[in-house]
Amino acid sequence: MNKIIECIPNISEGRDQVKIDMIASAVKQFPGVLLLDVDSDPDHNRTVMTFAGEPEGVERAILALVAEAAQQIDLRKHTGEHPRMGAVDVVPFVPIKNSTMEECIDLSKRVGEKIWKQLKIPVYLYEASATTPSRENLAEIRKGQFEGFSEKIKMPEWAPDFGERTIHPSAGVVAVGARMPLIAFNVNLGTDKLEIAQEIAKAVRHMSGGLRYVKALGFKIEERGIVQVSMNMTHFRKTPLFRVFTMIQREAERYGVPVIGSEIVGLVPREALLQAASYFLQLEKFESSQVLEEQIELASRELGNS
Amino acid sequence: MNKIIECIPNISEGRDQVKIDMIASAVKQFPGVLLLDVDSDPDHNRTVMTFAGEPEGVERAILALVAEAAQQIDLRKHTGEHPRMGAVDVVPFVPIKNSTMEECIDLSKRVGEKIWKQLKIPVYLYEASATTPSRENLAEIRKGQFEGFSEKIKMPEWAPDFGERTIHPSAGVVAVGARMPLIAFNVNLGTDKLEIAQEIAKAVRHMSGGLRYVKALGFKIEERGIVQVSMNMTHFRKTPLFRVFTMIQREAERYGVPVIGSEIVGLVPREALLQAASYFLQLEKFESSQVLEEQIELASRELGNS
Repeated sequence: MNKIIECIPNISEGRDQVKIDMIASAVKQFPGVLLLDVDSDPDHNRTVMTFAGEPEGVERAILALVAEAAQQIDLRKHTGEHPRMGAVDVVPFVPIKNSTMEECIDLSKRVGEKIWKQLKIPVYLYEASATTPSRENLAEIRKGQFEGFSEKIKMPEWAPDFGERTIHPSAGVVAVGARMPLIAFNVNLGTDKLEIAQEIAKAVRHMSGGLRYVKALGFKIEERGIVQVSMNMTHFRKTPLFRVFTMIQREAERYGVPVIGSEIVGLVPREALLQAASYFLQLEKFESSQVLEEQIELASRELGNS
Repeated sequence: MNKIIECIPNISEGRDQVKIDMIASAVKQFPGVLLLDVDSDPDHNRTVMTFAGEPEGVERAILALVAEAAQQIDLRKHTGEHPRMGAVDVVPFVPIKNSTMEECIDLSKRVGEKIWKQLKIPVYLYEASATTPSRENLAEIRKGQFEGFSEKIKMPEWAPDFGERTIHPSAGVVAVGARMPLIAFNVNLGTDKLEIAQEIAKAVRHMSGGLRYVKALGFKIEERGIVQVSMNMTHFRKTPLFRVFTMIQREAERYGVPVIGSEIVGLVPREALLQAASYFLQLEKFESSQVLEEQIELASRELGNS
């Protein structure tokens, strides 16, 4: 079974294309590791890289990438709109295929330890890898940013998970952790009343009492004369798309407003959609091995290995 | 883009394992062709083989299989419960991935012509490949079976699509055609009244006025004290699972009976489930390229080709 883990490092360089290319190249040298996307933002002066592959390859690739970024980036000279605390600011690992959150947590700890040992950059474990609840939220860790971190790192509650109580002079500190893939999911309502979308967003989101892994806001879609509940689903296995969707349908009924459509922005793990099919079709027992294409992939892998 | 077509030849030999193995081996010699399943039934004296691969490989594999089966099987000595008219009785081609019905129809015609030219077995095109509506249904073509076919083939309306008006002495005739994958889909009702399942089956099935690509029967599930609408979905793109499911929900309401679950027996194309997810979640525009795993497969193919 080939395991696939995704890694989406955020790099504090979004302007110098030569440097960005050199950092991205660090990933490409490892066979079986696929660089899927490089997205630079000059205003933020930040680049988000996405790569995926088997755990061993991903581990070697991210260590090479952090080493190269530490060479190329000097945060003392860095300006940009986006808050940041490291040359590589944050390194999330996401389980994609035949891999679990636990494996990603283990991987994040292995990588964190090596980043400190090999590069002397202090590491904070965040999200599912966090060692205390106050470190789950990246924004909490990053507060004070690079400029304030020389002081913050000396505070008793902000000792790094790996490393000593001094930041790396040019590369700062880095957050490393495991998280589920995010799904951006929007539901459109057949009304132009913004307050209805806002009320429903409040009802479904975790922060104000709703479902645990939902962030939600109400928006107006001016050009269509409708409103939208715009969401980030942060753990589709525990809070599935279909559950928040049916909840929004119910809430909208209370205002006599119809759900007129929905959209997924960007990528979605296949499992999140198969879950929804299985739920709405009321499938009693459904195994992913019943998917025809899975059979073909399986047979093709067996053939490849024989 | 690698195209995948599936082929499910039905062979009139389900007892002699040596012969079955020799016929199956004919498929295995072609690289890129995957033998997925060999399912023999001694009572029927029949074997269903399933293999898949790129169109060129599938074409060469099925021709080798028919040649081998014609060597191994003498229908003059064949007995078994299942109706049959050929050593290889029927050869369906099914579009699985990056392939269309049109490509499968073309393939069936190419293969049909070669079966006649190379092996002198007359060929009838059936299902989506049929040249007249009366040949769409395999049961219609097969009526009279091997024993009656020496006469039937001389009837004006039963001239073969490829070949002369005489059956192959030991291998009979063969039906070749393209069809969609079948999905066996059952819906369970919270009642023990068989007549309700039968009435609903009648309402949804094509034969008695329902949806075009649905075959349905009502059954009792004794051990659970419930009844079931048991269906074959013969074209999930044109008559989707979600449509027959919501129709059954409505019909059941009319009797005050709840739908308590459903099941897919055997394999289902992934697309049929993604369709259902997209329908019930009311996704306005959804592209399969938004599936994370598709991105990874794409990147991995590009890497493989570079």
